[in-house]
Amino acid sequence: MKKAAKTFTLTIKDNDSVLSCSSASTIMRTLLDRGLFIEANCNGRGSCGRCLVQVLEGRVADRDGNAVPPGENNMYLACQIYPQADVTICLPRLEVSQKAQAAQIPVEVTKALLKKIVLAPAYPTLSKHYSFQAMLRQALATAGAAAGGCDNITVLRSLQEAVAAKPELITLTLLQEEVIAVEAGDTSPALFGVAFDIGTTTVVGLLVDLNTYNVVAVCSKNNPQASRGADVITRIQAACESAEGLAGLSKLIRSCMNAIIHELCSQAGIETSHIYAVTIAGNTTMTQLLQGISPSTLVKQPYAALFNHLAPLCPNDIDIGINAWGKVLILPNVASFIGSDTTAAVLAAGQDLDTVPTLLVDLGTNGEMVLHDGQAMYACSTAAGPAFEGAHIRDGMRAAPGAISDVKITKDQVISTVIGEGKPAGICGSGMVKAIAEFIKTGILHTSGRFNQAAIAALHPGLQRRFRQSNNEWEFVLVAGAETMNGKDIAVTQSDIRQIQLVKSSLRTGIEFLLTKLNNKAETEYRIYLAGAFGNYIDIDSALLIGMLPAIKKESILSVGNAAGTGAVMALLSADNLKRCTAIADRIEYVELASQPGFQNRFLQNLAFPKN
Amino acid sequence: MKKAAKTFTLTIKDNDSVLSCSSASTIMRTLLDRGLFIEANCNGRGSCGRCLVQVLEGRVADRDGNAVPPGENNMYLACQIYPQADVTICLPRLEVSQKAQAAQIPVEVTKALLKKIVLAPAYPTLSKHYSFQAMLRQALATAGAAAGGCDNITVLRSLQEAVAAKPELITLTLLQEEVIAVEAGDTSPALFGVAFDIGTTTVVGLLVDLNTYNVVAVCSKNNPQASRGADVITRIQAACESAEGLAGLSKLIRSCMNAIIHELCSQAGIETSHIYAVTIAGNTTMTQLLQGISPSTLVKQPYAALFNHLAPLCPNDIDIGINAWGKVLILPNVASFIGSDTTAAVLAAGQDLDTVPTLLVDLGTNGEMVLHDGQAMYACSTAAGPAFEGAHIRDGMRAAPGAISDVKITKDQVISTVIGEGKPAGICGSGMVKAIAEFIKTGILHTSGRFNQAAIAALHPGLQRRFRQSNNEWEFVLVAGAETMNGKDIAVTQSDIRQIQLVKSSLRTGIEFLLTKLNNKAETEYRIYLAGAFGNYIDIDSALLIGMLPAIKKESILSVGNAAGTGAVMALLSADNLKRCTAIADRIEYVELASQPGFQNRFLQNLAFPKN
Repeated sequence: MKKAAKTFTLTIKDNDSVLSCSSASTIMRTLLDRGLFIEANCNGRGSCGRCLVQVLEGRVADRDGNAVPPGENNMYLACQIYPQADVTICLPRLEVSQKAQAAQIPVEVTKALLKKIVLAPAYPTLSKHYSFQAMLRQALATAGAAAGGCDNITVLRSLQEAVAAKPELITLTLLQEEVIAVEAGDTSPALFGVAFDIGTTTVVGLLVDLNTYNVVAVCSKNNPQASRGADVITRIQAACESAEGLAGLSKLIRSCMNAIIHELCSQAGIETSHIYAVTIAGNTTMTQLLQGISPSTLVKQPYAALFNHLAPLCPNDIDIGINAWGKVLILPNVASFIGSDTTAAVLAAGQDLDTVPTLLVDLGTNGEMVLHDGQAMYACSTAAGPAFEGAHIRDGMRAAPGAISDVKITKDQVISTVIGEGKPAGICGSGMVKAIAEFIKTGILHTSGRFNQAAIAALHPGLQRRFRQSNNEWEFVLVAGAETMNGKDIAVTQSDIRQIQLVKSSLRTGIEFLLTKLNNKAETEYRIYLAGAFGNYIDIDSALLIGMLPAIKKESILSVGNAAGTGAVMALLSADNLKRCTAIADRIEYVELASQPGFQNRFLQNLAFPKN
Repeated sequence: MKKAAKTFTLTIKDNDSVLSCSSASTIMRTLLDRGLFIEANCNGRGSCGRCLVQVLEGRVADRDGNAVPPGENNMYLACQIYPQADVTICLPRLEVSQKAQAAQIPVEVTKALLKKIVLAPAYPTLSKHYSFQAMLRQALATAGAAAGGCDNITVLRSLQEAVAAKPELITLTLLQEEVIAVEAGDTSPALFGVAFDIGTTTVVGLLVDLNTYNVVAVCSKNNPQASRGADVITRIQAACESAEGLAGLSKLIRSCMNAIIHELCSQAGIETSHIYAVTIAGNTTMTQLLQGISPSTLVKQPYAALFNHLAPLCPNDIDIGINAWGKVLILPNVASFIGSDTTAAVLAAGQDLDTVPTLLVDLGTNGEMVLHDGQAMYACSTAAGPAFEGAHIRDGMRAAPGAISDVKITKDQVISTVIGEGKPAGICGSGMVKAIAEFIKTGILHTSGRFNQAAIAALHPGLQRRFRQSNNEWEFVLVAGAETMNGKDIAVTQSDIRQIQLVKSSLRTGIEFLLTKLNNKAETEYRIYLAGAFGNYIDIDSALLIGMLPAIKKESILSVGNAAGTGAVMALLSADNLKRCTAIADRIEYVELASQPGFQNRFLQNLAFPKN
């Protein structure tokens, strides 16, 4: 018989929060319902192990009220425990590191997307009688502006407000020569925009002063949708399960964007009303979820997106807290699995302007590749999955403080480099790639990816003792528990290596299929742009060594950083850049990898590591 | 000391309504708050006498709890009485007569404003991969449609809904070649629009089948804003007093339009979702109030309107219950006091196409006049006021059942014609004009408008005894109390005649100032179009006789009926007509009468009646 639910308090230390919670709800559900971020890659099934919380005070139990054995330091999976009394917990501290310095955006602004013009209107009189709308039209004509006027009632309402006290000057905000807002007085110094790169895992916002073309603040946050699944597919399933699921995902990303906007404004000391435009680069699922559009068609054959290009949206339509008369521009996407983040990355890399063959590889939670063969452009997407962000890796985590980001194996020891000041807590994508590259160099991996027992037997004892069997599989300990944050060993398991093999094969196979478009004529005569995680973190030598990238001269590889975010800034600055985005999205031909003959075979072959 | 308010029930007979009411609120306030229409031209000040209700049961009192003497048949002013117990009342029955027959609209549709096209879309496949938006674009191109596609997310949402089950056919609704909605299957037979003429006093809706170009239903209702004042100025004051005042007026007209839409649909047996467009002709105050835009600038010098032209609105923006993807088109206005009803009337009369001088006179609650001198067009407006609709006339009422609409005075008797089957209840505008014309013919009025006592003394006794003094002024009884609905005499008073003199002088003076634009060259060589109340009800001979119109041959006068409504239908039918509306509004030059030299003198002269 079901017991009546009781209500307790849930205190979150270091956060000054006290929530009410029910004995019928998991701690995770209570946290998520109050909008508190907690990782829940498996959507609360208890399998991913990401939602660890430390219980400092109080008593928790399983659904049936039975005691649950705590982990070390009284850690529990928040998705598996129910409060039995007032409880105090400590949340995990895994914040994405924020780039302190403003990004350097290489742009030449040929035609501003947004501008303000200040006018001295001639108010109507009894003898010169006309409407305020006509007054605006005349003032624009007198100023020689390209805009002919405005027949949008929303803007005209702002006109009515602005001229109520007959100010001598009024300021018009124009988006691509269209009047979008009218303000009393000269407000021209306040003209800002935010460029967003909405990743599956991370959301980055860049605040741009549109008068000076400078990025004046940067802020990134974890995508809180991760609480409904680490990867795109899990989130789509959550969105398709119910209208609430879709609405919830939509609300999460909107809140996150608003939180970023607030932080950017606070960094730069401006008001949210000074922001008149937002550009958004993101994969198609992210931009559909943002708008509350069901992504169901994205996971059913033929995986069609609803749209490629959208007219500018009103911020109120998607609850984005900028100037109410501002506009939100979702950049155009190429196809269902090639989103506007790819369009923006191509723009930032200038790949659309190339005259020689180039290949762009953008590695985020998924991997997208674009080939420019000198004339046509092709793109494909691989379900890289979030392995590089720590998902499906036993001791995996994001590139955040505590993550092992680099590994060096000498004759007798392992040197791990950790992000930040503290002890290691796990291993991130760049650390995994580096570790595997080192394993290959050391000879302890077969090309198949299996540990080479014979080679291990010949290792120096200092390395050999790191090698052991646990949970029926072999693993290699990078850092012993005595040296780690939670007291547990950090190791690379055979399964972890398999995960990386899957990802690197899908990337490599995608690249190879695109390269066939070059008809062998220039298969080694091309340049590579590396963007996303590749551009930022992963060691290129190691990536070449484990075969993620084709064998190519290192000099032909150019890192273009967080190209999607840079592209979103560029589109925010210039109407010409925005136009280029549309041309890029129209021009790129989508290649569906799964339907390519021979894909499966090639994929299986590419699982292997290259011979060293 | 104030007593605590008590709560009672207010039962409305014949309406099946039982409301709760408070002893602290007037019966009128309770009725208005529940959305029940009751005339309140003076906004509850107790001066207009329009809010009479019959108390059948229960007890009422004044604000201080003192007894109020009832009128005949236990009638009370609803704005002056407070319930002291459960009360049952009977509301006045003065419905605007509804034209039974559908209007005849003389149009030739050159280019439909709205149309539906049925397409067979080629759904994307794995090998032919594109978005649903691209699919729509292709299908439009295949069908040879002028529309290039659609980048509006609202429409794309309808596309996603429509194609969810992959129907063989989809139907697109286009407004001026822009896709506004997508539906599954062939829905082409369902394509309707409603043309509204929003008058200060009366709101008329015409339902048009946009496939056959027929008006299939007509419905008119009293403008419920009359409860906040009979004339435009009183309503503007109510709107400017508080945000609630503006919101209330906005809500009243929206509800009225929705009630009309429902009645039209029920008459024609269609769903509201079959209506894809609404055109609106109305004076500028009405269209601003409809949108919840403060009309404050309309009553302050220089009386400027906010807008002339507006882009189509979404029905949800102003709570109009038609197809959610439909559009609302507020027709362009000329100036603050020359609204889109005038634009529509010019369209309907075809005045913009004239090559010889013509004068349009549209008499509604106000009077608007447009002169086409053969080349240029000029317009002015006169504050005619609602006298023709019964306001400020002691026994005045609207042209509704019970109204005396025609008066004939013979040698010894008065023959009154009443609208409908019952006894007379009052006198409407056309009856007043006719009565005064008969007074002039009989010789009992001086040209000054005063009763001619000498002439009266010489009348047949059958007429002479109708003449008497009451409340310190002379009046002429048309129908004795024994023959009237409420048992009270119906008479024309000296004050009533003065009211009509004020209106006819303002109209006539406006006309004369416009005619000066003809530079005397053709002052008698022009035609007159009569629209509105003139076009429908008022006897032209009488109007000429009392000097409302200049002396002109009767053959040069053409009645064009409810031209504003007809024009709104024409704009709904054809994009060319809508374009003509814009051209008309741009072309007409507004003449501000009050600033014309000599206006005041001319106005005073025109108060006199012509010599007979």
